[in-house]
Amino acid sequence: MKPDVICGVPAVAALFARRPGDAIRLFHVAELRPVVGPWCATLAAARKPYRMVAADELTKVAGTPHHGGIAVVAKPRDPALFDLARPPRANLLLVLDGIGNPHNLGAIARSAAFFGVQALLIGEGGALPSDAAYRTAEGGLDYLDVYTTPALPAVLSGLHPRFLTVAATLNPNALALTDLPRDQPIALVLGNEEQGVSSAVLSACRRQVRVAGHGPVQSLNVAQAAAVLLHALAG
Amino acid sequence: MKPDVICGVPAVAALFARRPGDAIRLFHVAELRPVVGPWCATLAAARKPYRMVAADELTKVAGTPHHGGIAVVAKPRDPALFDLARPPRANLLLVLDGIGNPHNLGAIARSAAFFGVQALLIGEGGALPSDAAYRTAEGGLDYLDVYTTPALPAVLSGLHPRFLTVAATLNPNALALTDLPRDQPIALVLGNEEQGVSSAVLSACRRQVRVAGHGPVQSLNVAQAAAVLLHALAG
Repeated sequence: MKPDVICGVPAVAALFARRPGDAIRLFHVAELRPVVGPWCATLAAARKPYRMVAADELTKVAGTPHHGGIAVVAKPRDPALFDLARPPRANLLLVLDGIGNPHNLGAIARSAAFFGVQALLIGEGGALPSDAAYRTAEGGLDYLDVYTTPALPAVLSGLHPRFLTVAATLNPNALALTDLPRDQPIALVLGNEEQGVSSAVLSACRRQVRVAGHGPVQSLNVAQAAAVLLHALAG
Repeated sequence: MKPDVICGVPAVAALFARRPGDAIRLFHVAELRPVVGPWCATLAAARKPYRMVAADELTKVAGTPHHGGIAVVAKPRDPALFDLARPPRANLLLVLDGIGNPHNLGAIARSAAFFGVQALLIGEGGALPSDAAYRTAEGGLDYLDVYTTPALPAVLSGLHPRFLTVAATLNPNALALTDLPRDQPIALVLGNEEQGVSSAVLSACRRQVRVAGHGPVQSLNVAQAAAVLLHALAG
């Protein structure tokens, strides 16, 4: 299995905070010497290598110039299969139905972790954590418990009534954010960048919610909609 | 002056809605024939060319495969210099202090237009509307009145007291969003992706506001923070 390459200080900090045993090798530029000490010590104790390199060499290791001065080669996380018999204890479960762009996955994970969300469920066909997503998430992906499922509609049906299942849509008849009941945990579903939430998933959700706009642009980018919804519903 | 290339149906629709005379040439793929009629008619009336092309030829014209099936070569907009003697009549003036990434500019403009913001002021050194920003903005940049200024701190000082000048920061002593006074128009300042709002601009603002997080990730991406702030303050 191809290892991940996790770049940038916040993402590397999250990796060492949550699963230090998955780190395989660390590369950093001289400027980051003041911050890498504890991570290098962890690797040294496990007889794993770390090395200071020039920025252009780091670009080769990272496969991108957007490495933020540090790259860690890491064992890929294997997202847990979602088990309806043991759903996460959370006030807000974030569910992604076909988010395809890894930068959107990363941006949504960053916002989710910022607002204190703890669990993320990714339906079949959606982008999974990848180098680009980790980089954009600034640690958010490692702070979240990530689950997958090949049967999202069935999982959503099964989450009721422990969670109020809510799909974010552009439907003008959907509930305004302020009208959403808040007396039980919420499973909030965000849909694909172009098509939105799929019809099977929409049918499985008990409520629909929308972010109301007042202007000439008809929709928010899904990562921006996620931020608005998570700000209102998380925590 | 090098023309802009404006791609994607929403951005092209905004261009023809707001400044049809700036369109120079239009290229589209066969699949978009049903929507381009009125735009081609506008061009024909002005004796300007339009042409159906294959997708790969459009990629060459657009300079990107992310053209959404249509590209219009257009005269660049010359953003107006902000005039303190005639500030825009708006409940919310959005101000960008050094946003460097054109995709962030575009994403912020899209959210701003979605929430009904009408005026955008860009300080010196910030990204200006560009092909990448127009593409990301989905029409938002053309729906906004865009101003620039080489003297953002002085402009912000001069906007008081007609506008409450508010800088978005990560400062824990900043006002929570719900505590911000809402009894007068607001000039909301968003800062650079890495450094935030500059100290000179911060000093010129009467208030600071923050989006409160509860999680392990320390900051939101500026485009996500913009969406949360605009949802709360615009309209």
